Amino acid sequence: MRTLAILGSTGSIGRSALAVVDAHPSRLRVAALAAGDNAERLAEQVAQYRPAAVALASADAVDRFRRAGAYAGTVTCGPEGLVAVATHPDVDIVLCASAGTAALEAVLAAIDAGKTIALANKEVLVMAGALVTSAARRRGVAILPVDSEHNAIHQCLHGRRPEEIRRLILTASGGPFRDLPLEQLRAVGPDAALRHPTWRMGRKITIDSATLMNKGLEVIEAHWLFDTPADRIEVVVHPQSIVHSMVELNDGSVIAQLGVTDMRLPIQYACSYPERWDAALPSLDLTKAGRLEFHEPAHDRFPCLGLAYRALREGGTLPVVLNAANEVAVASFLEGRLGFTSIPAVIERTMNAHQPESVSTVEVIRRVDGWARARAGVFAGELELTG
Amino acid sequence: MRTLAILGSTGSIGRSALAVVDAHPSRLRVAALAAGDNAERLAEQVAQYRPAAVALASADAVDRFRRAGAYAGTVTCGPEGLVAVATHPDVDIVLCASAGTAALEAVLAAIDAGKTIALANKEVLVMAGALVTSAARRRGVAILPVDSEHNAIHQCLHGRRPEEIRRLILTASGGPFRDLPLEQLRAVGPDAALRHPTWRMGRKITIDSATLMNKGLEVIEAHWLFDTPADRIEVVVHPQSIVHSMVELNDGSVIAQLGVTDMRLPIQYACSYPERWDAALPSLDLTKAGRLEFHEPAHDRFPCLGLAYRALREGGTLPVVLNAANEVAVASFLEGRLGFTSIPAVIERTMNAHQPESVSTVEVIRRVDGWARARAGVFAGELELTG
Repeated sequence: MRTLAILGSTGSIGRSALAVVDAHPSRLRVAALAAGDNAERLAEQVAQYRPAAVALASADAVDRFRRAGAYAGTVTCGPEGLVAVATHPDVDIVLCASAGTAALEAVLAAIDAGKTIALANKEVLVMAGALVTSAARRRGVAILPVDSEHNAIHQCLHGRRPEEIRRLILTASGGPFRDLPLEQLRAVGPDAALRHPTWRMGRKITIDSATLMNKGLEVIEAHWLFDTPADRIEVVVHPQSIVHSMVELNDGSVIAQLGVTDMRLPIQYACSYPERWDAALPSLDLTKAGRLEFHEPAHDRFPCLGLAYRALREGGTLPVVLNAANEVAVASFLEGRLGFTSIPAVIERTMNAHQPESVSTVEVIRRVDGWARARAGVFAGELELTG
Repeated sequence: MRTLAILGSTGSIGRSALAVVDAHPSRLRVAALAAGDNAERLAEQVAQYRPAAVALASADAVDRFRRAGAYAGTVTCGPEGLVAVATHPDVDIVLCASAGTAALEAVLAAIDAGKTIALANKEVLVMAGALVTSAARRRGVAILPVDSEHNAIHQCLHGRRPEEIRRLILTASGGPFRDLPLEQLRAVGPDAALRHPTWRMGRKITIDSATLMNKGLEVIEAHWLFDTPADRIEVVVHPQSIVHSMVELNDGSVIAQLGVTDMRLPIQYACSYPERWDAALPSLDLTKAGRLEFHEPAHDRFPCLGLAYRALREGGTLPVVLNAANEVAVASFLEGRLGFTSIPAVIERTMNAHQPESVSTVEVIRRVDGWARARAGVFAGELELTG
């Protein structure tokens, strides 16, 4: 029996993780749950799964949670709550599925406590890849990627030696504007951008998918997860999202992982690794999948991808700035204040204004993150849509 | 340094194997060579690679070999020659690339002598899978498939546990008549059938590719190589031949191997395994590969595939009969005496006339093979084209 803490249990990934627990009651048990603001749903989950500890983002949410039902276990809140859930002694595996940067300290604490990390959060590695991976190496802790692309690469690598790996090839759906000319991209609004062709996801990640920043962040994650330099990580646009990613080996052979688009599969993989449990999901039927296409990404129309490569190559705190500026720009876009093609402009200006330093502590990250958010806010204001 | 015996060194696979040796002079050395009738080319190969032993099919070929140049090593001929080359004490790996059934005894002798087998010959496993795989298990000898589909599956399996494997999925180009209606299939002649869309191969295997018998024989091979029952081996038509084959795992995830269509890659893989050496071949560029398509095979128009499944399911000597009857029918088709759609008819009649027995010895195989050839010849005569 493996025991699971879920950071972000009321979100999309968190709920898929609970479905995986439901499918494997003799193998997987929920030991602790953390949610943000959704106290009511957390109360339902707690009634069903009876974890030993829960956490919520705020004291207000804790109050609402208390009102929603009786619970005998520990309830904590804020960043300390996440840490308490992630380091609870009953927990074997911490699934980090909370959005944004809140979980960073909790993940580092979980690594220190020797927990296996199932990582579905991008920011943790984008901002703190150096800290997180060196801590995991020191402590002998596995970081198992839940993101479908990195999970695919993990499956393709499957114990192959580093010298056998020539390139990692991340597939990208290309987003809803894959074929849209630049002039029309300028006029894109939030509603159109939120219609993702293949995956159902949150608002922020859907916009990141439309700008290809999502793929850029994944390139940075892949660098840290698989200890691979930027020039050996490639992105190929694959609109059907059936090939989840690939690895090219040193003899030119390519190993790919394909599957249905269901997040339960990578979650289950991460929870079961190095075992692989049966799953009662429909098989992939390639004869019904239509044609699989592969294109080079259009860097000219989607500059966010190139900005992410630049942040990874220049290194240090620059990916922190990339991520923070992107969050600010996307929020501004979703509010209708910033144009679609101004998102990369805000990010680039913020990156240009930054003098990268080494990522030595979480405090450095927090400080640079705060600086970048403020600075990006100013640039976003300058580029704001008028009229 | 690994040392190689090549059975069939003057054929297409044999010459590709020598190109692999050329590319890895510090890792791979030719220790022994066997050819059929092409004494002149063998003499050239011997002058270049200086093997310790050579063999040819006939005394006449040996005479011509002697006249073509000086050679100080052992020269043998006939089946004993193949055995001598395959069991030579200098040899680590025996690449079996000779066509047909001549190499069967040599492969069994090589296994007994503890050689690693790199297998590029279909008939050995189709006819004698039970004998060959049980001998290899007993002796602790690896059989590494060189056929691109089985090689792909070997790469996808890569040490995964048997209980993790749900299905093997062999890809088939579908041959030149993939979309041809049945009426037009009846009128197909040897010239049209010899134009294979993606791979350059010998005449017999090109016809087998057009009838899908090639894929049927590969299903039987896959059964023996990977100890997988018929109902967990599937065939999917993939005209682009870029995905070389796939494995579906127990959670529904599919692992595929993709690559350029160059036989040097699987040959090198088999010679280097469990290492994987660099190869200076062009990388696969999926963005230039066009669209990848997958279809169900048209069993009604290509009954040879179903006949092969039937032979595998009913077992015993029935695959020997399938293979022998197919060879007779294809030869008759290539001579212009048998219609394309009569190939499966000859095979099915011969199979129906056979009472399968257990494959206990090579002698049983030889006897059934002889019976089936004679019987298929009679059926082919009955179905012969008139006018």
